[in-house]
Amino acid sequence: MVYVTRRETFNAAHRLYLPHLSDEENFRTFGKCSNPNWHGHNYILEVTVAGEINFDTGFVINLKDLKEIIRKYIIEEVDHKNLNLETSFMKGLIPTTENVAVAVWKQLSEKLPNGKLYSVKLSETENNFFEYRGE
Amino acid sequence: MVYVTRRETFNAAHRLYLPHLSDEENFRTFGKCSNPNWHGHNYILEVTVAGEINFDTGFVINLKDLKEIIRKYIIEEVDHKNLNLETSFMKGLIPTTENVAVAVWKQLSEKLPNGKLYSVKLSETENNFFEYRGE
Amino acid sequence: MVYVTRRETFNAAHRLYLPHLSDEENFRTFGKCSNPNWHGHNYILEVTVAGEINFDTGFVINLKDLKEIIRKYIIEEVDHKNLNLETSFMKGLIPTTENVAVAVWKQLSEKLPNGKLYSVKLSETENNFFEYRGE
Amino acid sequence: MVYVTRRETFNAAHRLYLPHLSDEENFRTFGKCSNPNWHGHNYILEVTVAGEINFDTGFVINLKDLKEIIRKYIIEEVDHKNLNLETSFMKGLIPTTENVAVAVWKQLSEKLPNGKLYSVKLSETENNFFEYRGE
Amino acid sequence: MVYVTRRETFNAAHRLYLPHLSDEENFRTFGKCSNPNWHGHNYILEVTVAGEINFDTGFVINLKDLKEIIRKYIIEEVDHKNLNLETSFMKGLIPTTENVAVAVWKQLSEKLPNGKLYSVKLSETENNFFEYRGE
Amino acid sequence: MVYVTRRETFNAAHRLYLPHLSDEENFRTFGKCSNPNWHGHNYILEVTVAGEINFDTGFVINLKDLKEIIRKYIIEEVDHKNLNLETSFMKGLIPTTENVAVAVWKQLSEKLPNGKLYSVKLSETENNFFEYRGE
Repeated sequence: MVYVTRRETFNAAHRLYLPHLSDEENFRTFGKCSNPNWHGHNYILEVTVAGEINFDTGFVINLKDLKEIIRKYIIEEVDHKNLNLETSFMKGLIPTTENVAVAVWKQLSEKLPNGKLYSVKLSETENNFFEYRGE
Repeated sequence: MVYVTRRETFNAAHRLYLPHLSDEENFRTFGKCSNPNWHGHNYILEVTVAGEINFDTGFVINLKDLKEIIRKYIIEEVDHKNLNLETSFMKGLIPTTENVAVAVWKQLSEKLPNGKLYSVKLSETENNFFEYRGE
Repeated sequence: MVYVTRRETFNAAHRLYLPHLSDEENFRTFGKCSNPNWHGHNYILEVTVAGEINFDTGFVINLKDLKEIIRKYIIEEVDHKNLNLETSFMKGLIPTTENVAVAVWKQLSEKLPNGKLYSVKLSETENNFFEYRGE
Repeated sequence: MVYVTRRETFNAAHRLYLPHLSDEENFRTFGKCSNPNWHGHNYILEVTVAGEINFDTGFVINLKDLKEIIRKYIIEEVDHKNLNLETSFMKGLIPTTENVAVAVWKQLSEKLPNGKLYSVKLSETENNFFEYRGE
Repeated sequence: MVYVTRRETFNAAHRLYLPHLSDEENFRTFGKCSNPNWHGHNYILEVTVAGEINFDTGFVINLKDLKEIIRKYIIEEVDHKNLNLETSFMKGLIPTTENVAVAVWKQLSEKLPNGKLYSVKLSETENNFFEYRGE
Repeated sequence: MVYVTRRETFNAAHRLYLPHLSDEENFRTFGKCSNPNWHGHNYILEVTVAGEINFDTGFVINLKDLKEIIRKYIIEEVDHKNLNLETSFMKGLIPTTENVAVAVWKQLSEKLPNGKLYSVKLSETENNFFEYRGE
């Protein structure tokens, strides 16, 4: 069993808030991240797949395929996008990085060979990281 | 003459567009960066001050002072903000990173001891950097 | 279950030695790290908390709270300090990074909601990392 | 139980191909990595050892010893080498980074105290990482 | 005048040697880099263009154009290639990183608007960097 | 003319203070850096040499030689040392990073071929950098 990780990046805008709260109440919960005029990040996404090495190729997965799956189903939906307004798989969710990581997992686990996805890690800033392993 | 650099970071939303152009025309010039729903970045700001070493302190500038000036006059205006809508010193300017770097220079050069500011460097992504030296 | 990590940094002096050994004997065990005149590091601390996402906020933990706990109970005790002489929670311990990581865990596990702390990771240099998970 | 990681780097050439396939067939499986004229990488190797802290030294393992073992048995065999032609422990294996990680594990597990080796992580590029934990 | 930098990466094999010298003589001059079986690197290329900001776009240069020029005229020629055998613009040159940097400059200066190219910086490893400014 | 940079690291303790001032007065000038019990850093040193490429070797300078000069005359004097008490070339100087950078320049300029040294850059933390070019 080898763990294979592909790193991709994307730039997006978001806002953390609950629509039934006032701006002041949202600020109390979400701080500066609730700014009604949005802010944004350079997100770093690390997708880890686990599996046995294929004897014929020496690969667990062809990283070219993994890269294309991530770009087609995730990056296309988030890069240079507004996570609140435009990302189909974030509909109805507060775009905290926790929620984005879980949503990315759900998207990818359907597209990758069964049982292969091991971890989705998302860095929001150089100081804040979030990881989901399907637990 | 020693060059002293302080690095700070901020997260902001922006959109590159010209108001008199259609969305299609803006897309032709600015690509994905013209998304009407905004996107954002983790900007890295590096401010370099140049000067002689003060014999009594061994400092060119007290970095605590430099940090406070950058935070008060720049970071407060841009962090978790929308550069198009909220940053006072970007009014009327397209928030390309080139324009932000020059505007940061103008702000800081008034607040720092005369002639000390040497360079303002701004990284928009891990692949795109912009530097202005007042030339 | 999502793993949420906050990264903080601190700069400290330390010395690895046993008081009942001579300088030569300490050098044989601890090498250059036993220098009686001290040396120091820029430590990087990564604290990981694990838990379920709160449906109302989309957070596992409010990172602002986690940051404040780390800064109040750890960074205040170690930043610009001598780990042998000044850090209360290192009293009587050799300040190897292994021991610092375990001591940080003990401090934080009392201050964080029960069962939430998952990992304390500490980088001493760009080549040496240490992680404790309470096992 | 503390996890102690040592990071080392090496620069090597390699080619991914199967000798019984034509260049065209190899290109279909391995892409640009099958170039018959070789290409290369700055590999980053992270070796993690897990164990209890020795009460007398505060160490899980003396990192000086771990560094010397990694350099003697791994780095000497791969640095500024051709992984297909010159690395003894890669004989008969396609030098995918998966296979290199497993082979490094086998080499190191014989040289380290029994049961101590926890993980071998190898970065091929800034976007592709591979980890083997002996599972 | 703003300095705009685009960062790209490529992976290549090379060997430093003079064909009229023996392997022993080449080793004396070039050390491990003279290995007849090749070795390789993950090179990081930073291309800096300098110019005035276009008032209409806020750009010195459209980074999309700069990226495409670098990829078409440089990356295509070096990525997953052998710099001694396959890179057209390195013909007859020892592929030291100094020589590669100057050759990249020559290639790019013909493709970029006159007088815009300011610097070509090439990192061979995390410890060795080379910069050419056309001087 | 090509600029060639070698990066080295070292770990040291230091304290910023003036012996004729009280601890309180030193704290007012130097803040936490005046701690009488010392603190320390992982310094990153980047030495840049500028010169023409030697046609026979493709080198401006053999980086193996540059590395050895830096290690012999600088790293030996500062690594795992106390910059106030043990570094011969810092005698009588406050070990601000400005002063260390200038002192490193003076040491190296005597050991390197005449006129070749272009810059000494020293990072004290990931946010504070200092550069001296002999001006």
